[in-house]
Amino acid sequence: MSVSQSSLQSRLLATIRTVPDWPKTGVHFRDITPLFQSPDLWAEVISHFVERYKHRKIDAIAGLEARGFILGAALAHSMNLPFIPIRKKGKLPYKTLSEDYDLEYGTATMEIHTDACRPGDKVLLADDLIATGGTLLAGKKLLDRIGAEVIEAAVVIDLPYLRGAEKCRASGLPVYALIQFDGD
Amino acid sequence: MSVSQSSLQSRLLATIRTVPDWPKTGVHFRDITPLFQSPDLWAEVISHFVERYKHRKIDAIAGLEARGFILGAALAHSMNLPFIPIRKKGKLPYKTLSEDYDLEYGTATMEIHTDACRPGDKVLLADDLIATGGTLLAGKKLLDRIGAEVIEAAVVIDLPYLRGAEKCRASGLPVYALIQFDGD
Repeated sequence: MSVSQSSLQSRLLATIRTVPDWPKTGVHFRDITPLFQSPDLWAEVISHFVERYKHRKIDAIAGLEARGFILGAALAHSMNLPFIPIRKKGKLPYKTLSEDYDLEYGTATMEIHTDACRPGDKVLLADDLIATGGTLLAGKKLLDRIGAEVIEAAVVIDLPYLRGAEKCRASGLPVYALIQFDGD
Repeated sequence: MSVSQSSLQSRLLATIRTVPDWPKTGVHFRDITPLFQSPDLWAEVISHFVERYKHRKIDAIAGLEARGFILGAALAHSMNLPFIPIRKKGKLPYKTLSEDYDLEYGTATMEIHTDACRPGDKVLLADDLIATGGTLLAGKKLLDRIGAEVIEAAVVIDLPYLRGAEKCRASGLPVYALIQFDGD
């Protein structure tokens, strides 16, 4: 880790807000909205991701609804790449593919337009945070079905105690996170 | 209208996809996702908005969930301004303010963090499209309650036959749209 990356990480850790007992008792929610209120720090985050990916021959960036749209859209615009929205069921108007994923209780569904990208395209997935990895894996499955190659998932925050990144890597999806929080 | 703006508008009109009978029979849905797949054209859209607003002393850009996050995040990053997510009920973890707005059947609720910006801040609202204007007006009310001044709503698409921009202007919210579609 370079000195500058370590400094960026320290400032990120100090900026993300922990909201206790949300959405339920005992959960410490990591709230990224203060980072969006800090444009200089946010610009460093985007630049960091641009540096990581600018030589990877990426064809498009896919963002997961809804917070993943914020990172994904800023990164796609910075890299002059197409942006692909992967959305919750029933939100995309054209022909779609669907993938269910598990929630704590029951399942939910993510969708992508069938023409979101071309077979063979190299796609980067973007989201603010990885928890259990369910939505990122659903996103990868959708892109796999189009024939695209998902090269990595880029997130700001990893919660490693939920083992989402581990699960993704075991399914062939590398995950790159800027910072990690433990469960305390 | 300048020649370059006219050209931009023509290309936008040719890029936005009309999906017939979605979400219900008789509605022609204007699908902006092909624009997100066209990074050069999207970059022109962002530059156009940056040119319009760069001398307006804006303090923050607020985007309406979820497609408004895509324009809002790209614009905020380009202008090095804070980005404020205005979200559907139950999605923001910290202290919130809520505003109901009318849907075709029933109502929905938008929320903002109480510390999203400061009293007196000049805020630009961003969304992909204005239809009836209900969500944009809910966004303005939320920002009004914080004491911010909403200077304008910036959207890519206006559907003037739904009179949303007219309703917003009558409520003190100017609306700037790049293109308009009629109801046919």
